[in-house]
Amino acid sequence: MKKSFVAVPTGHPFPLYNLPYGVFDHQGKRSIGVAIGDYVLNLTLIEEKGLLQIPALVGKKVFNQQSLNTFLRCGKACWHAVRQFLIHLLEENTPDLRDNMALRSEVLIPQNQVLMQMPVQVGGYTDFYSSIEHATNIGKLFRDPTNPLLPNWRHIPVGYDGRASAIVVSGTKIKRPKGQLKIGEEAPICAPTRKFDTEIELGFIMGTGNDLGSPISINDAHDHVFGAVMLLDWSARDIQQWEYVPLGPFLGKNFGTTISPWVVTLEALQPFSVQGPVQDPQPLPYLQKQNINFDIDLHLEIKTPKMDAYQEIAHTNYKYMYWDIAQQVAHHTVNGCNLESGDILGTGTISGPTPDSYGSLIELTWNGANPIHLNSGEERTYLNDNDSMRVIAWTKKDNLCIGFGNAEATVLAAK
Amino acid sequence: MKKSFVAVPTGHPFPLYNLPYGVFDHQGKRSIGVAIGDYVLNLTLIEEKGLLQIPALVGKKVFNQQSLNTFLRCGKACWHAVRQFLIHLLEENTPDLRDNMALRSEVLIPQNQVLMQMPVQVGGYTDFYSSIEHATNIGKLFRDPTNPLLPNWRHIPVGYDGRASAIVVSGTKIKRPKGQLKIGEEAPICAPTRKFDTEIELGFIMGTGNDLGSPISINDAHDHVFGAVMLLDWSARDIQQWEYVPLGPFLGKNFGTTISPWVVTLEALQPFSVQGPVQDPQPLPYLQKQNINFDIDLHLEIKTPKMDAYQEIAHTNYKYMYWDIAQQVAHHTVNGCNLESGDILGTGTISGPTPDSYGSLIELTWNGANPIHLNSGEERTYLNDNDSMRVIAWTKKDNLCIGFGNAEATVLAAK
Repeated sequence: MKKSFVAVPTGHPFPLYNLPYGVFDHQGKRSIGVAIGDYVLNLTLIEEKGLLQIPALVGKKVFNQQSLNTFLRCGKACWHAVRQFLIHLLEENTPDLRDNMALRSEVLIPQNQVLMQMPVQVGGYTDFYSSIEHATNIGKLFRDPTNPLLPNWRHIPVGYDGRASAIVVSGTKIKRPKGQLKIGEEAPICAPTRKFDTEIELGFIMGTGNDLGSPISINDAHDHVFGAVMLLDWSARDIQQWEYVPLGPFLGKNFGTTISPWVVTLEALQPFSVQGPVQDPQPLPYLQKQNINFDIDLHLEIKTPKMDAYQEIAHTNYKYMYWDIAQQVAHHTVNGCNLESGDILGTGTISGPTPDSYGSLIELTWNGANPIHLNSGEERTYLNDNDSMRVIAWTKKDNLCIGFGNAEATVLAAK
Repeated sequence: MKKSFVAVPTGHPFPLYNLPYGVFDHQGKRSIGVAIGDYVLNLTLIEEKGLLQIPALVGKKVFNQQSLNTFLRCGKACWHAVRQFLIHLLEENTPDLRDNMALRSEVLIPQNQVLMQMPVQVGGYTDFYSSIEHATNIGKLFRDPTNPLLPNWRHIPVGYDGRASAIVVSGTKIKRPKGQLKIGEEAPICAPTRKFDTEIELGFIMGTGNDLGSPISINDAHDHVFGAVMLLDWSARDIQQWEYVPLGPFLGKNFGTTISPWVVTLEALQPFSVQGPVQDPQPLPYLQKQNINFDIDLHLEIKTPKMDAYQEIAHTNYKYMYWDIAQQVAHHTVNGCNLESGDILGTGTISGPTPDSYGSLIELTWNGANPIHLNSGEERTYLNDNDSMRVIAWTKKDNLCIGFGNAEATVLAAK
């Protein structure tokens, strides 16, 4: 296995075989780069200097852009060629960049000197509901404990159109939303949410889309997906509870959604693919294919103002997901709906089978009935103002380990 | 009342006091214009030639753009200034353009020589459900005939995030979507919809937005709205029926939404404002303001391949709407959700109180129980392949009458 000449400590999330893409500001300029160890390789500069030796990209400006969208539109063969080029450029036996100290100091920037931005311009955001454990938990809490899954759930990767404008990059503070709450038999009031929650998800980023009226078949679906980020789906459970019938979640969700800044490519994730759960009943033919998940550990952590460090409150794994990304893409487009480069498809809350693997506070505290006890001596059911949440994700196999970095945000008080 | 030197027959939808904005292709170039009679005034050229005498716009390129979004971001004072300038430029006593025949032939283009495009780049699309008649009809059909309105309906302008990418301009054919249908006790199948419907709506276009976390108050809401188009919300009722619990409409809606190409400004609509229905109970304070609707007649028409001309099958009026656009904007942002220039807020189906004023086929045919009898001797419950639907909208007061033009589309067979 090759190594980079850039130092990457064992267990670091960004070794040579990860190379996640991101958009950053450095010295007043917005650029695109890949992460390698604690550095970011500035692809905007590499391209500008004519060093990007990819035939399909000669004379093009795919990295001198404000977002990854132009690069995404180049398609899978191009993404692969750039990845091969970058692995070669950065590996320890390639002298071109390694021995050119002037160029190195220009194009390899310490990550602590850059400010990460939204990696993509998100035109469309769809949020699925594809964890059978999560859907079962929510069904038990809100509908029927003895029959929690709705009849369509095992037939359809249920999802809804979300609000793309409210997606923000990790670190952006999220203000506690106001909205209508209906408490017991009282008349509804307008007040800050009392049930500020978050859900751990992955967000898959569409690389190439489809024309309106032309579905993406399940066999082609992976070719259209560029990569994935972590996603924190902030939720005001009391607003959601009162508003969501019959048209689904709206203001309970669209006040903010946090994503991690580094997009881990599907190609980098391939070695970590695992078979998904057995689906019963067998899905309809347009959803049939060997069910491929990825073995990605996700850790949910909290830090209150009284705490010095984050404390883990749950860990789950993407491998439990009932509906996979190929099925989500095939379903989303079977009616002809057009996906576009940069669209994000959220997996839905990733919950595992045991109570310590639930991916949201509503599940972890069973809607507030079982508070979480923190090392600080505090308790939490839902989030207080100034609490911070963080998610960290990793995948490991044999000697290879790559990570997503982290995604975090702090709750601001309502005005 | 002033008139234009451009001939505008009585009853024409685009007299001097309308001046709706659109985006068009002419001789291979995309431009922005306003409609006046049967002509379009090319604002891209007017701006390019330095003839747009608006202090705030000197040196700016707000009309040399692919969409109206840049102009929208200029804000209400700017929209007003441009409107005043254009009314002056086009009125019969202003010689500047009237008597400059070379310039006239260059900047006034017959509408039949241009191809209309999407007027805005739509980042976010929200569809409301604000007609009490429509919500009552749907509730009777699908839930409880004796208690059709859900408990939240009179408290909340219920709505959901829709799919912006699937919004297309009038004239674009809409392919019959495939999707999962569940018929009776049979297992679900994947097949073309058998209940292809459309809903008549208006789509309000956001002029200026708000930052994430900063709501738009109801008193400021009108200042943020640029104008309105007609909107045909294509719906596959059988797909919708099986998928929509618990996260709302998704593939039953996001395969295509048609809008009319000309954006009628809120300023042009002001003379036609009327008080909306009395709201009982009184809404919460953040939704309280004199309820302002507009007296806009909407006519829904059908043409099958056997028919030579469109036949009206319903007419309704926007004045019946229970929740108005200011309430929709205030509600949408009360949680901090950020709206953006070019976003479209659909009113939801506009149904009136009588059966001939229902705004969708599902209501007009009572979910297929009462077919519509056409002049051709045919019957329709839902739409057949190659059927066309059209909506035309007008508003009149005293001697003033302005229109929206029309929005139409034809149903293509599923592949």
